[in-house]
Amino acid sequence: MATRTRTSPTHTSSAGPSAAPASPSAASPGPASAATGYAEAFPNSTKVYLEGPHGIRVPVREIALAGGEPPLRVYDPSGPQGCDVRQGLPRPRQAWIDARDVDTIPIIAPAPSVLPSFRPSVTRGRSTVTQLHYARRGDITPEMEFVALREGLAPEFVRDEVARGRAIIPANINHAELEPMAIGRNFLVKINANIGNSAVSSSIEEEVDKLRWATLWGADTVMDLSTGRNIHETREWIIRNSAVPIGTVPIYQALEKVGGVAEDLTWEVYRDTLIEQAEQGVDYFTVHAGVLLRYVPLTAKRVTGIVSRGGSIMAKWCLAHHQENFLYTRFQEICEIMARYDVSFSLGDGLRPGSIADANDEAQFAELKTQGELNEIAWKHDVQVMNEGPGHIPMHLIRENMEKQLEWCKEAPFYTLGPLTTDIAPGYDHITSAIGAAMIGWYGCAMLCYVTPKEHLGLPNRDDVKAGVIAYKIAAHAADLAKGHPRAREWDDALSRARFDFRWRDQFNLALDPVTALAYHDETLPADGAKVAHFCSMCGPKFCSMRISQDIRAAAEAEEAEQGMAAKAAEFRERGGEIYVAP
Amino acid sequence: MATRTRTSPTHTSSAGPSAAPASPSAASPGPASAATGYAEAFPNSTKVYLEGPHGIRVPVREIALAGGEPPLRVYDPSGPQGCDVRQGLPRPRQAWIDARDVDTIPIIAPAPSVLPSFRPSVTRGRSTVTQLHYARRGDITPEMEFVALREGLAPEFVRDEVARGRAIIPANINHAELEPMAIGRNFLVKINANIGNSAVSSSIEEEVDKLRWATLWGADTVMDLSTGRNIHETREWIIRNSAVPIGTVPIYQALEKVGGVAEDLTWEVYRDTLIEQAEQGVDYFTVHAGVLLRYVPLTAKRVTGIVSRGGSIMAKWCLAHHQENFLYTRFQEICEIMARYDVSFSLGDGLRPGSIADANDEAQFAELKTQGELNEIAWKHDVQVMNEGPGHIPMHLIRENMEKQLEWCKEAPFYTLGPLTTDIAPGYDHITSAIGAAMIGWYGCAMLCYVTPKEHLGLPNRDDVKAGVIAYKIAAHAADLAKGHPRAREWDDALSRARFDFRWRDQFNLALDPVTALAYHDETLPADGAKVAHFCSMCGPKFCSMRISQDIRAAAEAEEAEQGMAAKAAEFRERGGEIYVAP
Repeated sequence: MATRTRTSPTHTSSAGPSAAPASPSAASPGPASAATGYAEAFPNSTKVYLEGPHGIRVPVREIALAGGEPPLRVYDPSGPQGCDVRQGLPRPRQAWIDARDVDTIPIIAPAPSVLPSFRPSVTRGRSTVTQLHYARRGDITPEMEFVALREGLAPEFVRDEVARGRAIIPANINHAELEPMAIGRNFLVKINANIGNSAVSSSIEEEVDKLRWATLWGADTVMDLSTGRNIHETREWIIRNSAVPIGTVPIYQALEKVGGVAEDLTWEVYRDTLIEQAEQGVDYFTVHAGVLLRYVPLTAKRVTGIVSRGGSIMAKWCLAHHQENFLYTRFQEICEIMARYDVSFSLGDGLRPGSIADANDEAQFAELKTQGELNEIAWKHDVQVMNEGPGHIPMHLIRENMEKQLEWCKEAPFYTLGPLTTDIAPGYDHITSAIGAAMIGWYGCAMLCYVTPKEHLGLPNRDDVKAGVIAYKIAAHAADLAKGHPRAREWDDALSRARFDFRWRDQFNLALDPVTALAYHDETLPADGAKVAHFCSMCGPKFCSMRISQDIRAAAEAEEAEQGMAAKAAEFRERGGEIYVAP
Repeated sequence: MATRTRTSPTHTSSAGPSAAPASPSAASPGPASAATGYAEAFPNSTKVYLEGPHGIRVPVREIALAGGEPPLRVYDPSGPQGCDVRQGLPRPRQAWIDARDVDTIPIIAPAPSVLPSFRPSVTRGRSTVTQLHYARRGDITPEMEFVALREGLAPEFVRDEVARGRAIIPANINHAELEPMAIGRNFLVKINANIGNSAVSSSIEEEVDKLRWATLWGADTVMDLSTGRNIHETREWIIRNSAVPIGTVPIYQALEKVGGVAEDLTWEVYRDTLIEQAEQGVDYFTVHAGVLLRYVPLTAKRVTGIVSRGGSIMAKWCLAHHQENFLYTRFQEICEIMARYDVSFSLGDGLRPGSIADANDEAQFAELKTQGELNEIAWKHDVQVMNEGPGHIPMHLIRENMEKQLEWCKEAPFYTLGPLTTDIAPGYDHITSAIGAAMIGWYGCAMLCYVTPKEHLGLPNRDDVKAGVIAYKIAAHAADLAKGHPRAREWDDALSRARFDFRWRDQFNLALDPVTALAYHDETLPADGAKVAHFCSMCGPKFCSMRISQDIRAAAEAEEAEQGMAAKAAEFRERGGEIYVAP
């Protein structure tokens, strides 16, 4: 059963910046895992900015190419580089937020202040500042302009998608460091990576390093699933250093506050946790409000019961009190809090299947239907919302998930964990799930929560995080291609042209993971001359299918030219030998 | 562009039997790659045999489980273990073959004899001994009985599928060591692994070791793509030590014989090569007979031209001679040779697309249509045939490939390379292609040719072979689940039950790669006690979603029992308090 796991701090140091490069014979994620910096990870790439109105500067990664090819620009969630962790990132949204109907306030839940300059904002009185609110009113916010430029779409289109609830721009007014992005099925498919410390304390730098590592390789959002002590301070550091939206599962922190005893949870503890995290700048909250008391017994006959941590916490609470889930009964109040900061909902799927046997069962679909009802309430409060989905689903049952979500949840963005298409490969669940993720992305899923090779077995280390992110970038891009996103094909075509032209360096630099591609090539043909060779190690220099193709192309061009000449010659003769003049 | 690559002998030794285990922090294929033996790779598994008629003994891997669970039996292509390489494997088919209308003959193309006892067979006169011939006549051969027992199907069903040409049993009469298997869409989805030495000579033991390594992890057939010197002898050793069908691309050896100059190829050289390999016992030949002269110019405007090695060899020959492909013009003669040994066709897709840009183009489909015409000729000669397919195809164009193949090739088995669903991830093409492979397997593809992480970059080493095989076992199994194969779900359910019951050892032993699963678990919780712990490292001992699920199950059972009692009590009262007697 796929649980949203945290990363292991204990293994971070072993592959940290100072670690020796991994052996090239180790398989994916390969030797690049020792690289930490943008420059080392992406040779020949430069971060450039597209300028827009309101001082908007949208980052893109520009890959310089040889052979007269124009540089390729690709989407870049890696954020500003080289900033001091203790100062946090620049705050490009601050001016936009300050212009809204907000007040800065004293911190309600104070913590050891890590960035003394930070003062949270909240809406003034009953006013609303959510992107959904503005979109419905017809306003194009700077965030929407940013997203439009980032995805190559019209700002009005972005506004319309947000207004319909078909896309969200998770952007807490207290997360001014954010580079806005959209989650919706008419945008590029996004991926999420989970990080978070465990009870064993890890340093601030280590936590921020994990965030940077995940976004360096392409994570579009990051969920901080920290537990244990220092949870507030850790999150503070992550948000202040994150250019991507940060999501959390607030019930985890609430549970810490009541000593880990689910039965002792109360609405008040949960409410205060929501406010605390909203003030810090969390962009979306996973809320398991669809786990209703009457659905819990539906899981009793499952092969793997309830596998969501948040789902089982709420199920235990419901059973212990024989009462309805307070996340459901207090849902309107939750909406009111989230509206004041523009925190988006990620409605949790606490009853998602944890095995192929339990896929698409009554419990799962009952909760999904309730998610749909909750979407309507969120929208009534101008709160942005997306829905979380499974889990473990065999391929032939994946489409039904997407269709039911579209119908019952009225086209709100879907955000799934995989799905894993078989249970038999622990150790390789980044692959079992990349298959399902690519498919559901094609069918219309807006964001894919990554799964690492350690799923079901242990806490992912740095290499696992990278393996998960790369597998999910593959799934998301394959989905973009299949959906016909206008800018997806550019990348494949640029790489394939480089391949056909034997521009080896370009081929590596255009790869999702350039350093691993280079290292694999060098295992067989390490000489520098091989980087310009018109052959590769597969066929060797004597016979090369691509060289033959180039001969064929030259021959065809020559023949075409010849036929053209022959046709003109025939025409010339027909005209009685007069001089031909092009029309 | 996916080329069918050979494995690198130069890297074999580095991860060979005597190598130290890889670091557990290395990602897939993980530390198990150092294991060579069946016992090390599959703890708690035993090879057992299902007994059938004609002395048939079908191997299965039986995984012993704890907790009162019955052992799980899984398909096992790993072959007899512990045999002396220089003696070859036992020859279970010899008696069946000897009973047919065959003669043993002197070897036409002699080579340094490696197994002095081996004398090739050939049909007597004009008689036919193919599985297709027998199936059409209504005979159930021992090979069909073997397959039926292996797949849990009725022998008559197997015969019927072979008779219709919807399945093949590649089984050269000179490959008596074979444990017969079927390739067809109403059977389990199969996978192929490519091996083969390069021009640099490698020892016989190394080559056989690669074969054993690939089949240990689950390869159902192996293609020997050797080039260079010793090609005949290498193949001899591989076949004599292989319990799985061996495929080759005879044009590679023919090209060696003419010094690597494609223009110098002749029908006579090719014909002699076919006979030489058929006498050795090759079970299927890739023949690029569909690459017609008039199709070659269709590739001129492609982004990546012709990427199949065999396809480009024939294209070059056609262009150089301005003549039709001799594999096409001589196709009937090829059929006559193959019928005499029961070698199956794997009709090559020499014009398969090598990039997303070239997917489903005119050249590709023109060749596929010609493959369909050639199928009919093969069937006229009682020769078994399957069709090779792409290549690089975005997800939304995959289904069209399967549908056209089913229609044009009259349901003959389809055998695809991937397909890769994006071009942008060199270094991870086992994943880009596992996505496409799983999908086309679900749609009806019968066999999936693996792709390793080294695709496009270099020669795969042992770790790469394993990574490719595991990724493809995942794809094939996910496809079997989606197709609803009756025996596929057993495995997932057994593993998921073990997971839910915290039977950690069972969970590892049921994994496709038990040693990697165990090593990943031990990174976080290495203590032996953790193997019986009722929690895992993801949530820790304090809170476990699965333990809560077990509480819920217990509560539901108690409630059900209570309700049952209450109902009986009510019934008792209704009956006026008489003693209730169960009907």
